[in-house]
Amino acid sequence: MIITVMDIACDVRNRNYKHMKIAVDAFGGDHFPENPVRGAVLAVRENDRLAVILTGPEEEIKKELANHDYPKDRIILQDAPEIIGMDESPAQAVRNKPHSSIVVGLGMHQKGMVDGFVSAGNTGALMAASAFILGRLDGVIRPTIATFYPTVKGLGLMIDAGANLEVKPEMLFQFGVMGNIYARDMMGIDTPRIGLLNVGEEKEKGSETLKKAYQLLQALPNFVGNIEGRDVLAGKADVFVCDGITGNILLKFGESIPDALKMLLMGVIKKRQLDKEQVALVTSLLQEAFMPFDYQRVGGVPFLGVNGISMVGHGGSSPEAIKNMILNAVRMAESDINKKIIASVA
Amino acid sequence: MIITVMDIACDVRNRNYKHMKIAVDAFGGDHFPENPVRGAVLAVRENDRLAVILTGPEEEIKKELANHDYPKDRIILQDAPEIIGMDESPAQAVRNKPHSSIVVGLGMHQKGMVDGFVSAGNTGALMAASAFILGRLDGVIRPTIATFYPTVKGLGLMIDAGANLEVKPEMLFQFGVMGNIYARDMMGIDTPRIGLLNVGEEKEKGSETLKKAYQLLQALPNFVGNIEGRDVLAGKADVFVCDGITGNILLKFGESIPDALKMLLMGVIKKRQLDKEQVALVTSLLQEAFMPFDYQRVGGVPFLGVNGISMVGHGGSSPEAIKNMILNAVRMAESDINKKIIASVA
Repeated sequence: MIITVMDIACDVRNRNYKHMKIAVDAFGGDHFPENPVRGAVLAVRENDRLAVILTGPEEEIKKELANHDYPKDRIILQDAPEIIGMDESPAQAVRNKPHSSIVVGLGMHQKGMVDGFVSAGNTGALMAASAFILGRLDGVIRPTIATFYPTVKGLGLMIDAGANLEVKPEMLFQFGVMGNIYARDMMGIDTPRIGLLNVGEEKEKGSETLKKAYQLLQALPNFVGNIEGRDVLAGKADVFVCDGITGNILLKFGESIPDALKMLLMGVIKKRQLDKEQVALVTSLLQEAFMPFDYQRVGGVPFLGVNGISMVGHGGSSPEAIKNMILNAVRMAESDINKKIIASVA
Repeated sequence: MIITVMDIACDVRNRNYKHMKIAVDAFGGDHFPENPVRGAVLAVRENDRLAVILTGPEEEIKKELANHDYPKDRIILQDAPEIIGMDESPAQAVRNKPHSSIVVGLGMHQKGMVDGFVSAGNTGALMAASAFILGRLDGVIRPTIATFYPTVKGLGLMIDAGANLEVKPEMLFQFGVMGNIYARDMMGIDTPRIGLLNVGEEKEKGSETLKKAYQLLQALPNFVGNIEGRDVLAGKADVFVCDGITGNILLKFGESIPDALKMLLMGVIKKRQLDKEQVALVTSLLQEAFMPFDYQRVGGVPFLGVNGISMVGHGGSSPEAIKNMILNAVRMAESDINKKIIASVA
């Protein structure tokens, strides 16, 4: 027997449910429903206080679920027959597809039926739907999307990663505030160094917007000032505050580094006619060195400033990555981050 | 005997000089006067139609010149006792130091005494002085600075690299036009692919400024549309059009990649306890693979849209890099690029 959402809906009304509940878009990403379903199975196996609600076309999810062994009472289906494609125009898709896996999942969250929602689907549509359906947290000017960024000192957080292309100084300040809380409570960095991405270190550098943002960010005791392009990989800050254009371009640029360098190295290897053993050595060294650039490990990134828990993963997310994203959503729901954001921007 | 500027000044007035003349800031960069002087010596040795005028404190240049063997009639001194430091505020420095090596060198160019000016000094001061002293080309809204960018397919051109932090669509269009001409005439790319750096490929992506710039750039037959962050290293365009914030951050970010990856790789190498021979292999492979990221090779980059030839090199430029920059200035002066820019923006 497959438990339906009506069952949990009743549970929630009676306030007698014992599990944290995360809705998962079973039709998000490049490999659906396989990867989201597998990720859900891995997640409920790892965390036995967790129940997952899979949203998407019910029959197809059932077929995929049939391939797996899982605790039947902790993976639940919610039919959502519409699919939002990876390339659809965000606002339009959200408006025109009320029965999509994204809109249905976020709707359940908004109604209090689940504690969070995760998807590896269309980031723009997820951002639009999260802001529209969940609304903003009190005092937040614009919700934002953060992304993890690899540095030689470990993972940093880049915020905004593409949600807000035109920013005001006050928005950049709030990105810093939200990034600060997320880095501290979710990434375990005691006192995150907050930096403002800019063209120079001195405080009078940059556009008018950046200069004013610098002044506002000085209110944070852990603001470390302007951060130049060369300081990102070097890890001179833990939180990199920027507008969505810079953040999005740097995010995708960073993801492209391993392939580009492998290509350059392969050219050299071919020219020098290295033997098999040497090639194997270099390949495996590179693979390990590039681990920090692997988005699969981090699972997913949060929309911050929305009134709820909503996370998005890379389209190519593996089952493992989706599992991590689900477990991160659980931790986020448990950590009261949103209350802290409201208090900090007040 | 050391020839003085008065001698060439007379020559120029009589229009009977037979050499291309490039003024070189002997006190620019991190290693002056050694590197600029050595670069000048290398340049006049390589191109016997070239004369170099070194600007800076005369006695110190003389001392350095005494260490070298060079054709005495083709390296000339112009005393300029003031020095603009690498960290000085550009506008102020240019205003307050009329006898600096930068202002004197550009002044000679503006008066027609030399055919171009190059420096490895303070980029901001050079941009300000170039725009102020040389003026803009007819029809150009704002002069810009371009920079070379490594890709797996060879060197691309990023424009603007930090001169214009607040841009209008028409400025981005002109960056594309100027980059197109420079890539074709100076970089030898027959039909440069012009791309607009943006957050997505579709033409409706980006800020209002980027959307309008897209429309304007469509007038160029070799415009290839929006380019995402992941497309830069992959070389999906030859000319990357962007504002000065994005360009400056990406420029410095790119320069930081080799060191960051060496650091990550060294961590792996240490952990795996590789032997000496293996370490030597990996190190030399990396060194060769990272060659495209080495700013020393390219020499210097041009300010485009100014009424003259003005180039700037990295502060750490080697004598070889300064030599390349001087020879590039010669080629640029010979190629009538500025006339082509005026015709294209008209």
